[in-house]
Amino acid sequence: MSTTHSLTVLKLGGSLITHKDQRETVDWNSLDRACATIGTFLGDLPDEHRLIIVHGGGSFGHHNAAEHGVSSTEGSTDARALTAIHHAMGELNGAVLGGLHDHGIDALPVRPLSVAAQDGPLQFPTASVEAMLDEGFVPVTHGDVVVDDRKGGTILSGDDIVVSLARTLGADRVGLCSTVPGVLDDDDAVISQVDTYDDVASVLGGSDATDVTGGMAHKVRQLLALDAAAAIFALDDLSQFLEHGTAGTVISGHDEERSH
Amino acid sequence: MSTTHSLTVLKLGGSLITHKDQRETVDWNSLDRACATIGTFLGDLPDEHRLIIVHGGGSFGHHNAAEHGVSSTEGSTDARALTAIHHAMGELNGAVLGGLHDHGIDALPVRPLSVAAQDGPLQFPTASVEAMLDEGFVPVTHGDVVVDDRKGGTILSGDDIVVSLARTLGADRVGLCSTVPGVLDDDDAVISQVDTYDDVASVLGGSDATDVTGGMAHKVRQLLALDAAAAIFALDDLSQFLEHGTAGTVISGHDEERSH
Repeated sequence: MSTTHSLTVLKLGGSLITHKDQRETVDWNSLDRACATIGTFLGDLPDEHRLIIVHGGGSFGHHNAAEHGVSSTEGSTDARALTAIHHAMGELNGAVLGGLHDHGIDALPVRPLSVAAQDGPLQFPTASVEAMLDEGFVPVTHGDVVVDDRKGGTILSGDDIVVSLARTLGADRVGLCSTVPGVLDDDDAVISQVDTYDDVASVLGGSDATDVTGGMAHKVRQLLALDAAAAIFALDDLSQFLEHGTAGTVISGHDEERSH
Repeated sequence: MSTTHSLTVLKLGGSLITHKDQRETVDWNSLDRACATIGTFLGDLPDEHRLIIVHGGGSFGHHNAAEHGVSSTEGSTDARALTAIHHAMGELNGAVLGGLHDHGIDALPVRPLSVAAQDGPLQFPTASVEAMLDEGFVPVTHGDVVVDDRKGGTILSGDDIVVSLARTLGADRVGLCSTVPGVLDDDDAVISQVDTYDDVASVLGGSDATDVTGGMAHKVRQLLALDAAAAIFALDDLSQFLEHGTAGTVISGHDEERSH
């Protein structure tokens, strides 16, 4: 990729763009608001910025995966079951693409089952993603089934894809947009800055604790390991994140040059 | 991949598995016969053989691509149009997967737009395909839209994918199953063996001629450049090809050891 562009990796959480309790139901209102905000941002900066969008599975991925007994650790060799989970995620991906197209965003799909594999570490070749970015498209990828060494197929989370792509492509900004305004302290106030895991261990649990926060502890640990600064924020702050790179809780990057 | 396995790349032509004159119409009869034959073959040889299936677009790809003015040379930057062509190919891919599943074949999709890119030569990273083969799955890929350097998105043909994967993965056998029984001579008899293009120039046209044979001249040239021997044959000969590696017209490989 050209070094004159900055690159943002933005995750739209599954709980944000779907109704999590209703099977395979898009939250069209939230999805449209997110797409409108992204469209306004890209419209203002057509040639300066490159964007990758990753979305979660919400009520499309989780029900299907659970029914077939597939998780990030439990695999299946039943190709029909794996294809069914992948197909459901494709339906959600199609809805996200349509929402983005409606706001003038040149979004194209990148389906992880087709490109990635778990072989110990995640293999996610980026020829297609880089070509899309170079041509001015917005790649839209998602949590999905992927083939996993000696396990058949397992679930690759959207969060893991965010981390992999941000690291491989040297993203400048990483944002997780979800239904929570950030990492919350014991009084439910947003913690504005996290520099080490110790800063949040008292609210998210120690390194050995069960992840009682619905994955927040795992997200924070993954984002702390990135070179780029990252942010966790709600939809109301998406515009601020896209314009300024900070919103909600900012997780410091390891690369001091880059993380201001 | 393990070297104890042999690898076949099999193309199911778009004209074979769809009704080419009826928009987006699967030829269920032909598709089911092909899937049944493949299922019988794999059932007899569960651990010895690895198979990749590539299918063409037929009446799913061609109408859509033509409507949007997209071809292998003419690109489009309209993401909604590119997504529509890709979506139509996904419908056909889903039908092929379903047919294979019905015959007990552990088939999984590999969508080229997600993994490949044209950057002068075709880039088609094979991490996902190799992982599928290692886990005993049958990757099923197809002609598709791919992003093309400075052109937006163009059409990548199933034939080009066959050649790319056969070369990258060192396929032992390559077969093109279509509606014709092979390369035909002037009396419409099947030419059993082609060692050089000169053998067929009189019926397919010289190197400068327009490809009046619906792409057959291009197919023969591509297959002659492969190390593996290749065959062009009709559905009636699919079983023979899978069992013996020869059927219809055999195109000699460059690798004499491999091409017997």
